[in-house]
Amino acid sequence: MSLISAATVSQHASRDSCWIIVHGKVYDVTDFLDDHPGGSKIILKYAGTDATEAYDPIHPPDAIKTNLPTQKHIGEIDPSTVAKVVKKVTDADRKRQALLDARPPLDEILNLHDFEAVARSVLPDKAWAYYSSASDDEITIRENRAAFQRIWFRPRILRDVTSVDWSCTILGQKSSLPLYISATALGKLGHPDGELNLTRAAGKHGVIQMIPTLASCSFDQIVDAAVPGQPLFLQLYVNRNREITKNYVQHAERRGVKALFITVDAPQLGRREKDMRMKFVGDDAGAKVQEGQSGVKKDQGVARAISSFIDPSLSWKDIPWFRSITNMSIILKGVATPEDAIMALEAGVQGIVLSNHGGRQLDTSRSGLENLVDIVAALKTRGPWPNPNFSVFVDGGVRRASDVLKALALGASAVGVGRGFLYAFSSYGQEGVERAIQIFRDEIEMNMRLLGARNLSEVVPEMVDASALHSHATITPRDSLYDQTYQPLRLAQPKTRL
Amino acid sequence: MSLISAATVSQHASRDSCWIIVHGKVYDVTDFLDDHPGGSKIILKYAGTDATEAYDPIHPPDAIKTNLPTQKHIGEIDPSTVAKVVKKVTDADRKRQALLDARPPLDEILNLHDFEAVARSVLPDKAWAYYSSASDDEITIRENRAAFQRIWFRPRILRDVTSVDWSCTILGQKSSLPLYISATALGKLGHPDGELNLTRAAGKHGVIQMIPTLASCSFDQIVDAAVPGQPLFLQLYVNRNREITKNYVQHAERRGVKALFITVDAPQLGRREKDMRMKFVGDDAGAKVQEGQSGVKKDQGVARAISSFIDPSLSWKDIPWFRSITNMSIILKGVATPEDAIMALEAGVQGIVLSNHGGRQLDTSRSGLENLVDIVAALKTRGPWPNPNFSVFVDGGVRRASDVLKALALGASAVGVGRGFLYAFSSYGQEGVERAIQIFRDEIEMNMRLLGARNLSEVVPEMVDASALHSHATITPRDSLYDQTYQPLRLAQPKTRL
Amino acid sequence: MSLISAATVSQHASRDSCWIIVHGKVYDVTDFLDDHPGGSKIILKYAGTDATEAYDPIHPPDAIKTNLPTQKHIGEIDPSTVAKVVKKVTDADRKRQALLDARPPLDEILNLHDFEAVARSVLPDKAWAYYSSASDDEITIRENRAAFQRIWFRPRILRDVTSVDWSCTILGQKSSLPLYISATALGKLGHPDGELNLTRAAGKHGVIQMIPTLASCSFDQIVDAAVPGQPLFLQLYVNRNREITKNYVQHAERRGVKALFITVDAPQLGRREKDMRMKFVGDDAGAKVQEGQSGVKKDQGVARAISSFIDPSLSWKDIPWFRSITNMSIILKGVATPEDAIMALEAGVQGIVLSNHGGRQLDTSRSGLENLVDIVAALKTRGPWPNPNFSVFVDGGVRRASDVLKALALGASAVGVGRGFLYAFSSYGQEGVERAIQIFRDEIEMNMRLLGARNLSEVVPEMVDASALHSHATITPRDSLYDQTYQPLRLAQPKTRL
Amino acid sequence: MSLISAATVSQHASRDSCWIIVHGKVYDVTDFLDDHPGGSKIILKYAGTDATEAYDPIHPPDAIKTNLPTQKHIGEIDPSTVAKVVKKVTDADRKRQALLDARPPLDEILNLHDFEAVARSVLPDKAWAYYSSASDDEITIRENRAAFQRIWFRPRILRDVTSVDWSCTILGQKSSLPLYISATALGKLGHPDGELNLTRAAGKHGVIQMIPTLASCSFDQIVDAAVPGQPLFLQLYVNRNREITKNYVQHAERRGVKALFITVDAPQLGRREKDMRMKFVGDDAGAKVQEGQSGVKKDQGVARAISSFIDPSLSWKDIPWFRSITNMSIILKGVATPEDAIMALEAGVQGIVLSNHGGRQLDTSRSGLENLVDIVAALKTRGPWPNPNFSVFVDGGVRRASDVLKALALGASAVGVGRGFLYAFSSYGQEGVERAIQIFRDEIEMNMRLLGARNLSEVVPEMVDASALHSHATITPRDSLYDQTYQPLRLAQPKTRL
Repeated sequence: MSLISAATVSQHASRDSCWIIVHGKVYDVTDFLDDHPGGSKIILKYAGTDATEAYDPIHPPDAIKTNLPTQKHIGEIDPSTVAKVVKKVTDADRKRQALLDARPPLDEILNLHDFEAVARSVLPDKAWAYYSSASDDEITIRENRAAFQRIWFRPRILRDVTSVDWSCTILGQKSSLPLYISATALGKLGHPDGELNLTRAAGKHGVIQMIPTLASCSFDQIVDAAVPGQPLFLQLYVNRNREITKNYVQHAERRGVKALFITVDAPQLGRREKDMRMKFVGDDAGAKVQEGQSGVKKDQGVARAISSFIDPSLSWKDIPWFRSITNMSIILKGVATPEDAIMALEAGVQGIVLSNHGGRQLDTSRSGLENLVDIVAALKTRGPWPNPNFSVFVDGGVRRASDVLKALALGASAVGVGRGFLYAFSSYGQEGVERAIQIFRDEIEMNMRLLGARNLSEVVPEMVDASALHSHATITPRDSLYDQTYQPLRLAQPKTRL
Repeated sequence: MSLISAATVSQHASRDSCWIIVHGKVYDVTDFLDDHPGGSKIILKYAGTDATEAYDPIHPPDAIKTNLPTQKHIGEIDPSTVAKVVKKVTDADRKRQALLDARPPLDEILNLHDFEAVARSVLPDKAWAYYSSASDDEITIRENRAAFQRIWFRPRILRDVTSVDWSCTILGQKSSLPLYISATALGKLGHPDGELNLTRAAGKHGVIQMIPTLASCSFDQIVDAAVPGQPLFLQLYVNRNREITKNYVQHAERRGVKALFITVDAPQLGRREKDMRMKFVGDDAGAKVQEGQSGVKKDQGVARAISSFIDPSLSWKDIPWFRSITNMSIILKGVATPEDAIMALEAGVQGIVLSNHGGRQLDTSRSGLENLVDIVAALKTRGPWPNPNFSVFVDGGVRRASDVLKALALGASAVGVGRGFLYAFSSYGQEGVERAIQIFRDEIEMNMRLLGARNLSEVVPEMVDASALHSHATITPRDSLYDQTYQPLRLAQPKTRL
Repeated sequence: MSLISAATVSQHASRDSCWIIVHGKVYDVTDFLDDHPGGSKIILKYAGTDATEAYDPIHPPDAIKTNLPTQKHIGEIDPSTVAKVVKKVTDADRKRQALLDARPPLDEILNLHDFEAVARSVLPDKAWAYYSSASDDEITIRENRAAFQRIWFRPRILRDVTSVDWSCTILGQKSSLPLYISATALGKLGHPDGELNLTRAAGKHGVIQMIPTLASCSFDQIVDAAVPGQPLFLQLYVNRNREITKNYVQHAERRGVKALFITVDAPQLGRREKDMRMKFVGDDAGAKVQEGQSGVKKDQGVARAISSFIDPSLSWKDIPWFRSITNMSIILKGVATPEDAIMALEAGVQGIVLSNHGGRQLDTSRSGLENLVDIVAALKTRGPWPNPNFSVFVDGGVRRASDVLKALALGASAVGVGRGFLYAFSSYGQEGVERAIQIFRDEIEMNMRLLGARNLSEVVPEMVDASALHSHATITPRDSLYDQTYQPLRLAQPKTRL
Repeated sequence: MSLISAATVSQHASRDSCWIIVHGKVYDVTDFLDDHPGGSKIILKYAGTDATEAYDPIHPPDAIKTNLPTQKHIGEIDPSTVAKVVKKVTDADRKRQALLDARPPLDEILNLHDFEAVARSVLPDKAWAYYSSASDDEITIRENRAAFQRIWFRPRILRDVTSVDWSCTILGQKSSLPLYISATALGKLGHPDGELNLTRAAGKHGVIQMIPTLASCSFDQIVDAAVPGQPLFLQLYVNRNREITKNYVQHAERRGVKALFITVDAPQLGRREKDMRMKFVGDDAGAKVQEGQSGVKKDQGVARAISSFIDPSLSWKDIPWFRSITNMSIILKGVATPEDAIMALEAGVQGIVLSNHGGRQLDTSRSGLENLVDIVAALKTRGPWPNPNFSVFVDGGVRRASDVLKALALGASAVGVGRGFLYAFSSYGQEGVERAIQIFRDEIEMNMRLLGARNLSEVVPEMVDASALHSHATITPRDSLYDQTYQPLRLAQPKTRL
């Protein structure tokens, strides 16, 4: 096959005939324009030219090859015909580099909030908006955090806590911590190595990573980065085309993945306004492309945009089919009610994740932690508890090892941490993730000693006071006039102001 | 009839003899001065001159003709005698135009709060004050919003939500959304087309509008703007002169209005201090005129000022009379207690609106949403529920489709939205209203999918946690000295400040 | 008796022999120095000179004559020997005058908060500190207000409220409003006419004033300012010397006072730190003198300083004695518990005031309004309610007529308003008080209409939701780090900033 | 023994051979480097030189002599060989002196918050960080304070409170106040006289001091500073080497200490991030050295660093041993649950302190005050209450005498105050402590009068409303967009701005 010249490609620069170059290959995406989850506009911007740089942070390397029929793979570009573009260092590049240079040294990072603060500072605006945003008024994302702060400890004393042990198994896999790295999408927006940062750190420290369907590294890249025997889980968005899903799941099982977390709280993606505002700043809908929220004419409805990778028809009837195509543990991710928890138990899956998708789906949903109490109570009516064949995980809002211990005390099998690790590698790459793991380890050791728990089975319900968990206090509107007339007390003042 | 010269008119420029010109007609308003709801001062300002420009945004075009006895219609002005006034473009005009030019493009409006922000920016101060104000300390207006945020969702999973359907009927009329446009007064303060913006958008999108008694367009202008078959409701302030009310109601019925919403929470208009402060800034009591709050000497009491259009004697004894003059559905707007809800049911009306008049009447009244729970419980003791012959509506504080779904889950038949649409046309005219309807549509589709409800009958009480609804937390006074001495934690800091 | 020359007086300018001139009379206060409630320091400042200007705003005119033995009344000053002091207009005077000139016109005052704002602006710092201060952390003074905002209305509809009537009798005296003017001390700090502003406005508008023991006008001056038949109450601090108290009470009864409110919550005066801080700014302990909080060496204890006018030994055993010296109604002011309310009932007094002294005594005491609910419940166990022979009043935190109606609905006989009227005359003199009365009248009329109550007997418990009254929500400490990392949502932004 | 020259010492300036000079003595600390709780780095900084100035504020004078084997005591330095260092007055010194000069006069200090404000201003940043910091998110330290503000008073009236008496005995020792000075570490960071400030003031005013194990004055210096008969308590960190602990305890008993408070809530020291951030500002880990939190490589775990003075194996099994080595009262400091309170009772100790270590250990632990209610209830099930043989103390968050009375009303035997007194001497030395005691005395007298309690046995549960104590209200996330659009009411404005 002869090479194609850049001049030829440049003739296909319209909606009627649209070619693009990605990693030296030429593709005809004319027919695909309307099916692109991120809309046609962003593709047309690169019509007739090399789109690699825009493509890379958002798509797995093989996405275009996989999704486009073979006959649309036109051929290879003739590199000699491509004008060498000297990438200009822009002011934005310089500013970002200065921000990176100004990061605090890693050993000054004392907790997970610090990672988030650094990430907010160094991430491009769009990446920050994509990662940090949640749906509607972002009530639920904050409630996720607040719920943990409504649980109070009742520590026990005078137990010999010289050595404490917090190792555990999660779905039969050994884990050095009672938590796992939960799936988050589009890791390359935060760091060039994307999800691999997590895989490498997890392998080194004995932590389990859940691979996202919407990773920006390819599934195989991630699995290849694992050390021998490193357990991995897989998060799954179910495709309307079940054959694609079947192939994907069975490939994962063959590559050794241990458990399948099927996302059940996203028949449609939530409105994330912080992210949506971003698109009006520039014309590059990058960060939102893969999830398909924008660039689609509203009149067509959002459903069409997501039809290619999320199936809103997914229902309980599909569970037996999943059971038939894989032997991996099946976990439903996104359960919120005792009713559905019981249905999951009866459907024969191996567990559930009490999650509201990090607050990115239905806003003003309750926190997973609050649901945990009701759901554990319901499950106890169906047999001995804990049930070795049915795990209950919680995610959302975890920032401290004390949060993890609170969830365990209330009955969780383990806890998922998503954004925490995402911000860790966005700010410091793999080293950041390792530091985050270390912080969890230090905190969990300390907290178990202070709680008087020598191993995780000693982290019992009596160690927490959850009486305030269900009390969603609201703020009575302030008495504006009173507040303006009331003069607060002052402290003793220095004789002179220095 | 010969034309009247401007010079002649100008001789009647005192309290003893006061003529004004409105739309080319000369009126003798001398005897009317003391009956003007807005006080005599504002009329006397235009005594002997053309008052059209001040008259227009506040009164329906035919108000003066209708309210003044025929013998006070002096005749037509001779246009040749009127000095051509070249309307000067003032700095204020220029500033307002600049604000209008700076509005965000309509597709950047993501939610109803955005409309309010734009309206606040572009509206003249007095119009904003009139629209946004509520009574006393404005506790209730804010509580209306806060109440929705005290309801939490309990979403269901794994239901096939490929297609969801949120159409419904309201009082027998088809509606494309489970909400209606509630009545708000004086629309021309916000936009030259006033209430017509609502009528046109409602007709285009299958939404029902409730026409206000205090519209600044005339009733017939509004009905004329409707498309054939477009259902309309009418909000009614009952006049002390029942004959006027009877004519108005029967005219509405003849013109095809489907339901009559009688306001029962306004025997006297509330004190709206934000609005009252405005009058001290200039001398033009414009925005308050029609509701008659100001410009009246306090010593006479407010009752006199409102006597012409709101009757404080309205009582349960009047209901049979209303039933006798119209076949429209009769709805009582402004019910707040189970006791009155039961009385309404027994009085044979077709429904009630749980409303506190957008917080503009009795301050520290509870929200309609909170009352809904008690009232539905009470109505259930009187027969099967929902009752096809008795609707329960809620208004106040709605900003999101999720609010609508919360109210429906708790038993509401539909929800009224007033200020939301008012701000939409104040900022973008008819297009704003259409965009608002579109936003509701997008949000309701998404939220129903995420809730696991395929149609409105699947939006059930079990989908919400309303346990916090009645908990009116208050704020314990802060410990001022402690707060001043406590030093909040800091995050890791960048090495250098950029 | 010959006149005394200024030169002679000036020779008595030490602790060993200390004379001062007040209103042209010379007094020897040497022996009194250590008994002065405000301490000796402030007197010694004027030793040998004319102290009238400092004396006047704090003491009733006859205080020195009454308290000093006759033999210490040295004689009259020879005016010809006194150097004419041309009072210099200071910068402070000029600033205060400018503030007075800048007051908003009285008709812009829409509510009682406005008076407070104006008073804060125009009052000298020390007067403001004395009036506005409360004890310790000022939790209770703010809770007094917050408690009213925890009561929500349940308004009734469709009652003929053409005319509403809010007149009532208080302890058998007709009152045009269901509230009385409560006693506050040292009125001349706020306005040259002091308490007379209240007396005159009260007489004109049919409102009842409670005269304070610590008035800066003399008791007789106040009574003389009343119109014929104007009912007056008297607030009493019980003197350690019961003969003084007896004379005072019997004189009041003779002059027509109708009821005696004995303060029972002040065996010692509270620590009012806002006021205490003031004394360190200058050396003039003026505002605190009469209540005797400062200028006394701490080592001696506060008890000594107040010994002359407040008796900490006051107890239930004294009630029969009071009964024996007067036929006036006796009311205990400062009751806080059902236990003491029952004891008061059994002691045969005519009523109680549920008060915490405007938050100036025991800090973190509950509000009178909260205590009202418990106390009414307790009193109902002792006989029919309301009890025509036993009144229950509430004071503290009232700013709106709606507050008054809430207290009445919960069982109060009437409500006391102290600071509200104090700030009214501090900012606008008698006219301010009249305006405040007018505001109450307007608001009460409106609120009764909106509540659906045609007279005060229709203001019933069912009209309020007091379920939140006892819920003292506290603020969980904020999650400082989370709050710093969370980025709030933004509204749509204008295209350009103007 | 001949003197050693500075030149000789300076040859031992490495990890291989490390000598330092302290108070004129030369020590070989080479082998001790890895055992130093504060890490080797800080010692190596002074290798071969005089370390006295850095050593003094953190260590008791005899610490090095006691902890180092005799053979490592090399000898005395030859003073003639040491270059006279003229201590330079730095800018920091000058700034600190200016801050000290600007302190408000002591009589302007009205409450304990004032001391904290002054301390924050005058303390070196590191000392402030060490004193003020608490663990993790500092939720518990603030909750300690908030808990007191959730208790409301129910004061009684008309009791003869001419004289009130608040003296009491604590563990059999007379105390002039129902509170004791609780142990806090490293007093010399705040004032050159360190803990002696407390001892002297306590002796003068009849208050009991608890001596900390980690005092920066030596135990004997403190005891020597006491007046004859002055009761002292001792706080104990139990050493891994029980012989050291035994000697320490028995020495204390011989010197007359009356009670032993064994810390049971610190098997490992908490993460105090405010303090940890400090170490990154400079390289001097001073403030943290003695508690051993930093300067230790994380990989080794914190346990190692603290191994020399805190034993994580401490358990109930050790109690009989303590009983066997001393006749002092034994109190367990740091109990948080009824379960452990009962175990303590059954273990035969003389009391417990309900404490969370000033919020410095397990964050989000409940306050001692909240635990008090549950624990007193539990203890009442085990016999008559109060139990003369078993005391229950509370510490944490006390700022006012009213706090003390609240704890006593709820069943506490007495209350511990730590930071309050620490800040008092940090800002004003011994005089500050005396002033703090005086403030407590004034406030307790006043509050008992206002409560109607004539002695401490009259401070009964019925005097407080603790119903809100367990209600940990949380803050529902704010509705950011609503808050941005809502425009608060304004007060009447002055005509002109001055």
